[in-house]
Amino acid sequence: MNKIPVAILGATGSVGQKFIELLTNHPWFEISELAASERSAGKKYNDATKWVMATNLDSSIAEMEILECKPNLKSKLVFSALDSSVAGEIETDFANNGYFVISNSRNHRFDKDVPLLIPEVNYEHLELIKNKKGAIVTNPNCSTIGMVLALKPLYDAFGIETVNVVTMQAVSGGGYPGVPSLDILGNVVPYISGEEEKMITEPLKILGSFDGNEIKNATIKISAQCNRVPVIDGHLETVQVKFKNKPAKQDIIDIWQKFTSMPQKLSLPSAPENPIHYFSENYLPQPRLNSALGNGMTVSVGRLRECEIFDYKFVVLSHNTIRGAAGGTILAAELLKAQGYLNGIL
Amino acid sequence: MNKIPVAILGATGSVGQKFIELLTNHPWFEISELAASERSAGKKYNDATKWVMATNLDSSIAEMEILECKPNLKSKLVFSALDSSVAGEIETDFANNGYFVISNSRNHRFDKDVPLLIPEVNYEHLELIKNKKGAIVTNPNCSTIGMVLALKPLYDAFGIETVNVVTMQAVSGGGYPGVPSLDILGNVVPYISGEEEKMITEPLKILGSFDGNEIKNATIKISAQCNRVPVIDGHLETVQVKFKNKPAKQDIIDIWQKFTSMPQKLSLPSAPENPIHYFSENYLPQPRLNSALGNGMTVSVGRLRECEIFDYKFVVLSHNTIRGAAGGTILAAELLKAQGYLNGIL
Amino acid sequence: MNKIPVAILGATGSVGQKFIELLTNHPWFEISELAASERSAGKKYNDATKWVMATNLDSSIAEMEILECKPNLKSKLVFSALDSSVAGEIETDFANNGYFVISNSRNHRFDKDVPLLIPEVNYEHLELIKNKKGAIVTNPNCSTIGMVLALKPLYDAFGIETVNVVTMQAVSGGGYPGVPSLDILGNVVPYISGEEEKMITEPLKILGSFDGNEIKNATIKISAQCNRVPVIDGHLETVQVKFKNKPAKQDIIDIWQKFTSMPQKLSLPSAPENPIHYFSENYLPQPRLNSALGNGMTVSVGRLRECEIFDYKFVVLSHNTIRGAAGGTILAAELLKAQGYLNGIL
Amino acid sequence: MNKIPVAILGATGSVGQKFIELLTNHPWFEISELAASERSAGKKYNDATKWVMATNLDSSIAEMEILECKPNLKSKLVFSALDSSVAGEIETDFANNGYFVISNSRNHRFDKDVPLLIPEVNYEHLELIKNKKGAIVTNPNCSTIGMVLALKPLYDAFGIETVNVVTMQAVSGGGYPGVPSLDILGNVVPYISGEEEKMITEPLKILGSFDGNEIKNATIKISAQCNRVPVIDGHLETVQVKFKNKPAKQDIIDIWQKFTSMPQKLSLPSAPENPIHYFSENYLPQPRLNSALGNGMTVSVGRLRECEIFDYKFVVLSHNTIRGAAGGTILAAELLKAQGYLNGIL
Repeated sequence: MNKIPVAILGATGSVGQKFIELLTNHPWFEISELAASERSAGKKYNDATKWVMATNLDSSIAEMEILECKPNLKSKLVFSALDSSVAGEIETDFANNGYFVISNSRNHRFDKDVPLLIPEVNYEHLELIKNKKGAIVTNPNCSTIGMVLALKPLYDAFGIETVNVVTMQAVSGGGYPGVPSLDILGNVVPYISGEEEKMITEPLKILGSFDGNEIKNATIKISAQCNRVPVIDGHLETVQVKFKNKPAKQDIIDIWQKFTSMPQKLSLPSAPENPIHYFSENYLPQPRLNSALGNGMTVSVGRLRECEIFDYKFVVLSHNTIRGAAGGTILAAELLKAQGYLNGIL
Repeated sequence: MNKIPVAILGATGSVGQKFIELLTNHPWFEISELAASERSAGKKYNDATKWVMATNLDSSIAEMEILECKPNLKSKLVFSALDSSVAGEIETDFANNGYFVISNSRNHRFDKDVPLLIPEVNYEHLELIKNKKGAIVTNPNCSTIGMVLALKPLYDAFGIETVNVVTMQAVSGGGYPGVPSLDILGNVVPYISGEEEKMITEPLKILGSFDGNEIKNATIKISAQCNRVPVIDGHLETVQVKFKNKPAKQDIIDIWQKFTSMPQKLSLPSAPENPIHYFSENYLPQPRLNSALGNGMTVSVGRLRECEIFDYKFVVLSHNTIRGAAGGTILAAELLKAQGYLNGIL
Repeated sequence: MNKIPVAILGATGSVGQKFIELLTNHPWFEISELAASERSAGKKYNDATKWVMATNLDSSIAEMEILECKPNLKSKLVFSALDSSVAGEIETDFANNGYFVISNSRNHRFDKDVPLLIPEVNYEHLELIKNKKGAIVTNPNCSTIGMVLALKPLYDAFGIETVNVVTMQAVSGGGYPGVPSLDILGNVVPYISGEEEKMITEPLKILGSFDGNEIKNATIKISAQCNRVPVIDGHLETVQVKFKNKPAKQDIIDIWQKFTSMPQKLSLPSAPENPIHYFSENYLPQPRLNSALGNGMTVSVGRLRECEIFDYKFVVLSHNTIRGAAGGTILAAELLKAQGYLNGIL
Repeated sequence: MNKIPVAILGATGSVGQKFIELLTNHPWFEISELAASERSAGKKYNDATKWVMATNLDSSIAEMEILECKPNLKSKLVFSALDSSVAGEIETDFANNGYFVISNSRNHRFDKDVPLLIPEVNYEHLELIKNKKGAIVTNPNCSTIGMVLALKPLYDAFGIETVNVVTMQAVSGGGYPGVPSLDILGNVVPYISGEEEKMITEPLKILGSFDGNEIKNATIKISAQCNRVPVIDGHLETVQVKFKNKPAKQDIIDIWQKFTSMPQKLSLPSAPENPIHYFSENYLPQPRLNSALGNGMTVSVGRLRECEIFDYKFVVLSHNTIRGAAGGTILAAELLKAQGYLNGIL
């Protein structure tokens, strides 16, 4: 099978680099174009980029010339790691010109015709782009994804009324150069701009139901408090839930352990065997030890226990730059491909 | 005025060292005896201790001989930094022999006749030991103190029904050697043994009312989730509160800023001018920047805002080894002295 | 081919865990026995161990019963991760009873009949154990290995008179619980007990020549200064060298890049394609980014430049728990196997 | 006595903030003007600055209006924390217009008529600006200062031929935002732009002799290797020295412990009682524990021992933003004042 050529918009930043790292040797996709800001365009990738991944940059990528982010690229499937200051217009421009844009940026997340996709959670929202010749599909925010993935099977089984979440988020979520070391070394910053709003609003769309026409938001009361901690990768979150029908503790664990969804059914290349892993050790999951589970695509949960205020509380951990960003976006593209949404551009 | 001689039990550990650091040059107290386990007894302090404070050890202390933790010490005022594995019996033994033991250990915190004291919060609980010739007074847990101090004036003004707290606690709370670096470097551990139970139960006694005879616990529903973060000093906590009577946001800030109590009225040496400091910057307080406020005795609050689930949410920060341990204990001793509780031993 | 059964002595500690992690799914070896101290013996591995690796423990290992470290094990090939307080006697006992012990402990490193082995550097020293029915082979210290591997091809080509090294060593080198977080968070400790002595003496034996009978030490003047830094994995070292015949800079780079040795020739499973990788970027190598190169078995060098005092200076980085400990030991065992040293026990 | 009004150029950056912190409540100087870039000029200090010091900003400073960096300020004594991209011209402009500029920037360090001053080391170099009506005096680089201060009394007593230094430098040396957290969390970066060159050249001028006319550089062979480590404050350096006349170890310790100089003789407000403190514990000095010694103005040394290659090796620690920057600059200004160099502007 010929691989599908893909382009990466915003290829020089840290999410762009993670796209490159994860797409190198991908069985279905092949990086054929890299695009970035005017400042970088025309340069060799290696010259325009300070590579900060922990793997070595592939030399064929290093030599590629960076293109401008204009809809004259040959690849019709485009991964966007653009900064939100420019992503809105550029992504629209590409979609209007027949490209499929799978984006990690926040700009179009609440557009009516744009799926806000976690492949295991709301794959049926993809119908929003059925028969389209160009479209945008977005990834939720990195702090939203892990929590909603852990909540999804519980939401379906028991109904959820209230969610209270406090996050301890890794610095890689802030991009590069991002969080200054003087702010975070041996410290915690109890504020991340815009983050709490995203965690309160995004789950409602993601868990919403598609009625064949539009998405009807879920109605869950959510409070979020977001903190930055001196961790490289892995957002850890304490979550408290009030259900519509309170289940037994073991029921929750069973449902998590058995949970699989469309990506697993389709054996998508980036789909982890188990989207959710439950740790019974009371000191797990931990960002440094468990973020990489399932190649960074498995969400870990642990410390499930009854709550004095809500029904249950637990912790959830997800790899913020893989499951919560580039990896999740790639899985979304795989889902589009497997379900035929990309047939028009192949 | 002659200084009051004091002894320190458990002088070689990290809380013991912090006692020594804070009592050096204290205007009222003077370290006259150091006691520790049998293993250390008989040695010079300097030889038995790996000093891990950031100030240099006073040479006169360094030369002192370590005594055994037996109630034959000359100092009748005793600070206890004993490990909870031995503190219970030893502290009882001292109290029964006419000593006043101000303890940082957890063992006697729920004894009926033992005040669980935060000097600004429940100084009237000291009446429990009125006319006693020997007694134990305990400090609450380091994670409890900051939260309860911030809640106290609100509790008095508006009543509190529910408190939800998630902590991000510094490694110094685990003593020395304490938390292994492999556990916490670039990591978060979502579990601290016994900590959540303390945060759920201690506030009820501290905020309880003394009816002239015994303490009647407050009735507040509390949930606590405790995490360890790679911070040296300063426990940061996100707190959500449901009041009996919901106040306006500015009322809360005003009450915090105006709050003073008995230690301030008595101008106790370790009492901070303001027990509570409110930060209006949305990125403060932070452990590294603000823990040392008021010589580590001021508790910082910030990010007060309405909550989608409870009435309000905010963050609170307190220095866990000063306000939350040795400093709080010393302030308690100052209060005892100023209010005449120590007259019998002077 | 049937896999060779191996036993791990000291299986519950952090080096023991790393052995288990690296030997899981090894193509030649298969863990058949785990042994540890009397305290752990008789328990299930999972119950006696706090697993601190970043991968999940294989369930079949988790269920194994821990045996005592006595030479009644069935596996004749034994990996030792024993603490040096007990390793000396136990390893001798095993060797005398017909076992091949590949050890990470320091006790026998300078025994006359014990190879101090870095497989790419001094594989010919294995002749010391030729025709033996039981023997000990040791790994050098983790801080020695990276440096000596980088020096080896230069030593052969140009001769070396003087080496000056300053290390910045990761906390995983101190085992678990090992370095207290209060010692190292946001800090550097300019002292590691015994480390400088090892770095001064071990290279002389490793780079020594085997005359068919015994090893004649190399004569190099070495100074070492060892520091602990808050890094999880990866010892970074600044190295200055005075050669017998000063080469051109490019000659050094060429020699590093072309260097391979017996493990590469034999295609040993753990042998990296390139034992030494040279980074031309002036800000590399860095522990967090580059330690895992070649599955942790490749040593990185960079910043090669002329020195005002010596001939050249550069930095070297090696993964201290893989190349510098368990991985290096496994590579040694593979070498023994491939060269027939284990034929007697198979 | 009326305090001397001072202005701070570059007041909004991290060194500017440290100047403000240290000059608040200074007995001789009083901040009367704050200046910064055009972008900040005209704003209130508090509005233009993200305050990142660990002390609260004084409200009177917070309200001050920021001025432009033009020589129309009323204060004739000016502290410069300007970025080196603009410091060169601005500082010259001020000096030419009758201002005394005490600068932390590197631009004029090697100007023939500019003292490169460490007050305890080369106070006699101030004669370069004798009778001048305006002048520039510069601070050496933060990594140079601690080392040269520790070397000075040894240089005078025994002569020094060769110095080999490897640094482990704190992130605060990189300013704010400065070093990205993704670069340094759990990591070491073996490169700091321009740093090694400064450490090789600056000591030669500082230790040079003033012949009444110009400074004759010292002749010492120096090699420097500079690394960034995840430490907030405090540059730790391993130093090796070859003397002209090799002393006994105890002689070196004695000379360090007895060393005082002009700032101590004049009892300057910022002069530490002991410029150099020797630690006999082999695990000290450490950045986190000992940087603040002498209010950050004392340089710590330790681990003095014979070297296999040079004569001796030891570690030196200095607080890079106090002794190594703002504090050192203020001490320089105090020296100018005490020795009458400022008489013309008072």
